[in-house]
Parts: sequence; structure tokens; C-alpha cells
Amino acid sequence: MSKSKVITSREEDYSQWYIDIVKKAGLADNSAVRGCMVIKPKGFALWEKIQGQLDKMFKDTGHVNAYFPLFIPKSFLSREAEHVEGFAKECAVVTHHRLMNAPDGSGVVVDPKAKLEEELIVRPTSETIIWHTYKDWINSYRDLPLLINQWANVVRWEMRTRLFLRTAEFLWQEGHTAHATKEEAIAEARQMQEVYATFAEEYMAMPVIRGAKTANERFAGAEDTLTIEALMQDGKALQAGTSHFLGQNFARAFDVKFLNENNKEELVWATSWGVSTRLIGGLIMTHSDDSGLVIPPKLAPTQVVIVPIPKPSPEIGEVADKVIAALKAKGVSVKFDLDLKKRPGFKFAQYEMEGVPVRIGIGKRDLEKGVVEVARRDTKEKTSIPVDGVAEHVVQLLEDIQNNLFQTALDFRAKHTTSVDNFDDFKAVLKQDTPGFVSAHWDGTAETELKIKELTKATIRCIPNDNEQEAGECVLTGKPSKERVLFAKAY
Amino acid sequence: MSKSKVITSREEDYSQWYIDIVKKAGLADNSAVRGCMVIKPKGFALWEKIQGQLDKMFKDTGHVNAYFPLFIPKSFLSREAEHVEGFAKECAVVTHHRLMNAPDGSGVVVDPKAKLEEELIVRPTSETIIWHTYKDWINSYRDLPLLINQWANVVRWEMRTRLFLRTAEFLWQEGHTAHATKEEAIAEARQMQEVYATFAEEYMAMPVIRGAKTANERFAGAEDTLTIEALMQDGKALQAGTSHFLGQNFARAFDVKFLNENNKEELVWATSWGVSTRLIGGLIMTHSDDSGLVIPPKLAPTQVVIVPIPKPSPEIGEVADKVIAALKAKGVSVKFDLDLKKRPGFKFAQYEMEGVPVRIGIGKRDLEKGVVEVARRDTKEKTSIPVDGVAEHVVQLLEDIQNNLFQTALDFRAKHTTSVDNFDDFKAVLKQDTPGFVSAHWDGTAETELKIKELTKATIRCIPNDNEQEAGECVLTGKPSKERVLFAKAY
Repeated sequence: MSKSKVITSREEDYSQWYIDIVKKAGLADNSAVRGCMVIKPKGFALWEKIQGQLDKMFKDTGHVNAYFPLFIPKSFLSREAEHVEGFAKECAVVTHHRLMNAPDGSGVVVDPKAKLEEELIVRPTSETIIWHTYKDWINSYRDLPLLINQWANVVRWEMRTRLFLRTAEFLWQEGHTAHATKEEAIAEARQMQEVYATFAEEYMAMPVIRGAKTANERFAGAEDTLTIEALMQDGKALQAGTSHFLGQNFARAFDVKFLNENNKEELVWATSWGVSTRLIGGLIMTHSDDSGLVIPPKLAPTQVVIVPIPKPSPEIGEVADKVIAALKAKGVSVKFDLDLKKRPGFKFAQYEMEGVPVRIGIGKRDLEKGVVEVARRDTKEKTSIPVDGVAEHVVQLLEDIQNNLFQTALDFRAKHTTSVDNFDDFKAVLKQDTPGFVSAHWDGTAETELKIKELTKATIRCIPNDNEQEAGECVLTGKPSKERVLFAKAY
Repeated sequence: MSKSKVITSREEDYSQWYIDIVKKAGLADNSAVRGCMVIKPKGFALWEKIQGQLDKMFKDTGHVNAYFPLFIPKSFLSREAEHVEGFAKECAVVTHHRLMNAPDGSGVVVDPKAKLEEELIVRPTSETIIWHTYKDWINSYRDLPLLINQWANVVRWEMRTRLFLRTAEFLWQEGHTAHATKEEAIAEARQMQEVYATFAEEYMAMPVIRGAKTANERFAGAEDTLTIEALMQDGKALQAGTSHFLGQNFARAFDVKFLNENNKEELVWATSWGVSTRLIGGLIMTHSDDSGLVIPPKLAPTQVVIVPIPKPSPEIGEVADKVIAALKAKGVSVKFDLDLKKRPGFKFAQYEMEGVPVRIGIGKRDLEKGVVEVARRDTKEKTSIPVDGVAEHVVQLLEDIQNNLFQTALDFRAKHTTSVDNFDDFKAVLKQDTPGFVSAHWDGTAETELKIKELTKATIRCIPNDNEQEAGECVLTGKPSKERVLFAKAY
């Protein structure tokens, strides 16, 4: 970053604010390939933190990683009727396997002789290739459950893309499990929803509603789609992760059967679940402000930065070394900025932009008083702390910041969740600048759901888990309803 | 694995032995997609160990990770003349972005209306898309060096594939660095060759020759290709990793210039370097035997397995728990096999097949004597060890195994490296069952190199670093030569 230009404020233009943060915090860029992004080092470092923690949580719940092919034979997609409707529409199709020099010397062209017998699809999701493989791996109940996860890139040819939130290629993990019983598969899908929710809340400091999708919003091929839904600062919802109970649909499509303990053949039960680099978009939009990115401490690649004021000196270096050693001993990641070419004020703005949770300024005058200045990124509060107590103070401060970010987001969501009982109120809430979640009765039909979407752009984000059963009347049709569901405009 | 069938011996059929190990140790399988493999959980766990250590070594040498698009616009490949010759030949070409229902209801077909304006190539390597991006990132000497690595999948449409060694899609890392000076770029390429060599020798226990490729064997677009070459048990060489000094070729092709300290514009200097899942093939063929896989302890996902004999009991459990706690405290990964459905003999064979470095058998009789049986996978030696000293013994044993595997491979290479001074001897060595490396004089011409390949199938694996300068005569043409080079048949 050569010159720090102030970013667009949220109030001025929320979309532009988001893009400004992604670009100016050095997280990602558009690429030469339509809809595909370049994840820059600072963005990828965030993804590595997310990956590392999720991978640990997957392994702690008994899963192992594997890797399946990038390509899916075209015919595989057609095997599951709903799946093909959902994913064949916009995908990258490989038709040839060779280029040749153009006869006119203008470059290279596709070699027409190298046409594939069957086209290959770049995976938009891997159920089909994986269940084709599972057929070879599963014979008996002894082979079950199979609890496998894959970290991979996938491609969906989206027409309107936005960095991290919706890109043609994105990085994700996809879990694909196989079970002997329906109950076990349902329990697995619920467990993974809870793993995602725990990760979102405890690490991303992003509160989420755990719920189920309506039939209309389900994954193509699923019998039940569980979701975690977060609320962004513009009052729009973000689907942050989904976990699907797939029933026996893919086992049936790929003929995957097992011999049960009574030596009888049965179809296998399945789940799949995934989160993606979209989480980075959610993290940005949950916590960041008009000064730039705000990263919750548990996911910050650099948790603390030390800035010498106005520039490095032996005295400052001595104190910094002590603080660094004490912080590292407590497992805190810390960077000491020794760049001589930039002034402290510039550095302060830069680290604010990049979202480093805690900044320690060490200056000559402060040192004479035996203190350093500790600034927290979330509230921007600054405190003078005695040199000896800095490490302990910072460890506590990181915890406070993590909790404060979560609590602030939780309060925001509470403030922007409205219960309504008639359609005028429903529309009025959704017309506000920050509409948020709207809790309302719905008659349970896809028809009403689509009509409401058409009229208000709001969709049913989920039917919350453990939803209170409460008799009422559909907000649109007045037909009877047994529980409220959560509506919102969404990303 | 339901029944353990003995694998083919190396003597009987080396290629089949290799495939048997890959499949029966559960490392990988062929897939429904031509030339693409499925990396199974046990194979992927090995890759995770390899990744983890390499990633640490890359970061320790100042590199950061990023992620660039899977797709490369076709025209990018043509920008660097040699590069396109090397990589346009066999690649996966995306021509369309949509499928549609077949008019005859037979499934899905490519939608002819969704033809891309410019075809996209699935990356066979990422120099072109990355240097296109670097143009935006590099303006001044202050932006240099850029030290970036990417973990990714790549696709090269190979005609003859073999699990791990050569597959159409494979996983790898590719480092792409940008520098202000030629000297710095050369130093970077050498540093990464040394990182690879250190990893191969200290972690994989696989001795390698560090050297440079001849012009003929260079990476397409490189000015110098450094390599590490290992020797497999069948006497064939394996190129295990390469590091390229790319000169200013890609900077020129993508117009990447920087302002130097004197405010003058210059082209940027480049390197790239990569290792892939091929390393797993090298690891297998360096150490494994006719009982199965042998994994060096430093890369073993499970370093120690404890087998109760004949089955679990409270007494055995008590001792096992103590041993497990002591081993874990020393950072050793350990598995306690409580499976009641399999007998000890079956388990022993299974863990031998899977290459677990150390097996501890705990039986009632041994416990009466206060000992357990410790077996090492490499030599299959078994020792009775007093319960109290097991953890310490095992830690030392793991180190011994690591060293023994390296030394055995080093001895093997020494035994199968032959210096020859005439072409009859040259041919005779290469006709042996286990030909190995042949050190011979060469006149320095591509013509002679190709002629020797045609006559013997041997290629120049490398000109070793710090090669002794020794006048001689080319083994084929008798023309003067100033140093020996290493020939071998190769994978």
C-alpha cells in the first residue's frame, strides 16, 4: 500500500465499503478470469486460520481427509434427478484435451482431434464422483460409517459475482459421510451444523441462527438442509454453512448398498456439509468498520503489532524484545514493525485497515514513565500500561475483544430481529435501511414463500431449531400456521 | 481391507509391487476419470504430513501463501514462446459454461449457446496467470521481493499415468517469486532446491542428488532448472522436485517492470519451484519392502500402534494407557487397536502393510515378566522392553529407524552408482536389472544427449552441484568434456 486512501463509509455505500475493505486490507482481487478471484497473502492467511481450526474440529469428531478428482463425467450429474437440475445449469465444461499451433501462426487453438468422448464438468460439488467411488469402498456394515472430508476448489459459473461472497471458483471443504442407518445420518448432519455454529460463534465471533431450510431452499438432492444464518451490518442475512441429510438419494443413484448385520442388502444413508471462503466475507461484514477490517483475535494471523514511536531505537528495541518474548510465551502472535520508511501515523492507519486486534506503541516519553500505549482495534480505546504488565494485559485484552465483538454482533442481531403479525408491518420492516430478520407466521407452502419473495425480496432463511410451537396465521395468506419462521433479504 | 492377500514381490514384478502397495496400504485408487486418482484417507494423511513440514519450511524462509485462479485464458499460454510449447500440448480445455437437458430426454448435453469467447485452460502450472497478476502488484523496488507460494491442484493430460508418479490431476505447491536482481533470483532458486533436498533427506529419509538440468531437460520457459534426483529400488531415478531460475522471461511476456532505487524502469527477475504428490511415490519406492509400505517415522501419521494380545483386558488396558500417556507427552502419535473382530496376527500383517514404524504388542505372559514386545517395521526386529522404559526406548527407536532408512537408501545409491568411461560399459550397466546412476563424460550437446537416450533409454538426470571439474572424453562421441554428468533411466 503506497498511500492510504480513506475507504467509503458504510452509510455512504455499503457495497463499495465492502469492496474497499477487501482490496485495501489486501485480502483479494479480481483476476483476469471472469468471476474468479485472486486470494492475496493476507486473505489467504485468514483462510489458513479458518481451515486450521475447522480441520481440528472435523478430526476431533472422527473425520479424516481425502481427495477426489476435480472432474466429474457429464453423465454422473444426470444420475440424481434433482441434483442435475441444481448444478448442471452453470458449470465449466471441459470438451478437449489439447491445443495446437494455429495454422495462421496467430497463437494456439483447440485441436479438434482432441475432443473428449464424454465431456468433463469441473466439480461444482462432489456428491456424484464421491458416491461413485463409495460404491467400491462399501460392502458391509463393517465399512460404515465412512466419515470423510475434502478441502478443495469448486466452480459454479455464477453470473453476478462478488469477492469472497460469490465467485465462480471458490475454496471450501465438503464432508461426505456414509451411514448404516437413517438415524445415524441425521445425527451426523446435526452434529456438523453444530460444529459450524460453534466455529462461527466462538472463533469468528459471529452469532448464527441454527435452523432448517424450507423444501424450496434445500440443496439439490437433499431431504433436509440444515443451515447457520448470520446477520450482516446492512441487515441482510448470510447463509454461512449448510449440512445436508441426503437420505438414500445418492446411494440409489450410484447403487451403493451394504450387507447389514443380518446379511441383508440395504441402501446406504448419506450426509454432506460444507463451508467456504464465503466465511471471510461474513467475517468482514460482521465486524469491520469505516476504518477498515476488524478481525476477531482467535482468527487473526497477527494478533499484536508493536510500533516504535517515532522510530526504532536501542531503548525501544530492548523493551519490545521483552514484550515480544512474554507474548510469544503466552501463544500470542506478534509483529514488530521496524520499517524506517513509514511514519507511526501511517502505520497506525495501515494496521487499523488490516484489522490487527491490538497495537502497542512504544515511545521515548512513555518509556520514561515506564509505560507503553496499548490500543484495541474494536473500540479504538487506548490505555497506558506499565511495561511489566503488558503481556498479561494483552492476553486479557484479546479475550475481551473476542467477547466484545461477539456481544456487539449479538446485540445488533437482537436489535434487528422483528416479530410481525401482518403483511403491512412485514413490508415496512423490510423497507428499512437495515431490515434484519423478520419473524413471522407462514402457511408452509412454496407458493406463499415465492410470492413473498416476489413482493419483498425476502426469503425464508430458516425454520429455527427448537422453534417454539405457536399457533398463528400466515402473514400473507392468513392461513393457519404452527410456528414462526425467519425471513430476511440475503446475500 | 477384508482379507489380506500377499502382495507381489519386487523381484517378481516391480511395477505390480508398487501398485499393490498403493492399493493395499489404502493410499490411492484409480477413479472414474481417466488418469485422475482418488487419494484415500491414509494416502492423504501422508500428504498432510508432507505439506505441514514443507509449509513450515517455506514460511521459515520468508514465503507466504496465496491462491490464484484454476483457469488460465488460452491467450496467456502463448505469451511465453517456450512455455506454450511445453504446456499447451496436453491440457484440459474448458470451452462452455452450461449444460442443458438433451432435447431427446436422454440426459444433459453441452448448451451450444454457452460457448466461451475465449477458451480457458485448467492450469498445468501457474506462471502465466501469476505473472499477469504480478503486473498489478509490482511498481517499485519497494514491492520486491515477492515471495509467494500456492498449494493447488494442476492438470496435465498425460497419456500414460501411474498412481502418484504421473497422474492427469495432481496436488502440488508452486512457489513464484519476483526479485529486483538476477543474483537474488538465482540465490532464491538455489535456496529452494536446498529446502527440498533437506526435506527429502531429513524427513523422507530419501537421499537426493542436487544438480542442474541440461538445457534439453529444463522447464519450459526457464533459464536454469535445478533438481533433486532420488534413486528408486529398481535402479531408476525419480525427479523429486525442481526449482527454476526463470530470468526475465515471464516479466517480459507479461510486461512486469519496476522502478529501481535510481527511478529507472527494469524488468523483474523470477523463480518458480514445485514438489507434488509424486513425492509419495518416491517415498514408497525408496523404503518399502515385500511386506508393504515403510514410512519414515518423521512423516508417519501414526508412529506407534499398540496391539493387545490376544485381546483387550483391564490389565493390558492399564499398561497401554500408561505407555500412551508417556508417548504422547514426548510428542509421539500412537494408536491403541481395540478392534475385537480381528486377531493379533491379522493386525500385525495389516500394520506392516500400512508401514506403521513401531508396533508394541502387550500380552498377558509378557506382562507377568513386566515387559512388552516392541517391533520395528524397517528391520522387523522384535525386542522385549520393560514396561517402565518403553516410551524412552520407542523415542530412540523412532530416531534409529529414521536414520537407518536414510543410511540404507544412501548405501543402496552408492552401490548403484557406477562411473564408466566407454560406451560398452555404459550400455552394460544400463542393461542390468538395477541400473542406477551412471556417471559419465558427455560432450555437452543436446544431439548426443538425445542419441544416448535413443540407444539406452537413459537421460541426463543432472549435472551435480559442486561437480568435480575433470577433463575427459564423451562416452558416446569421444569429444572433450570437462565434467561427468549423471545418467539414469527415470520415472
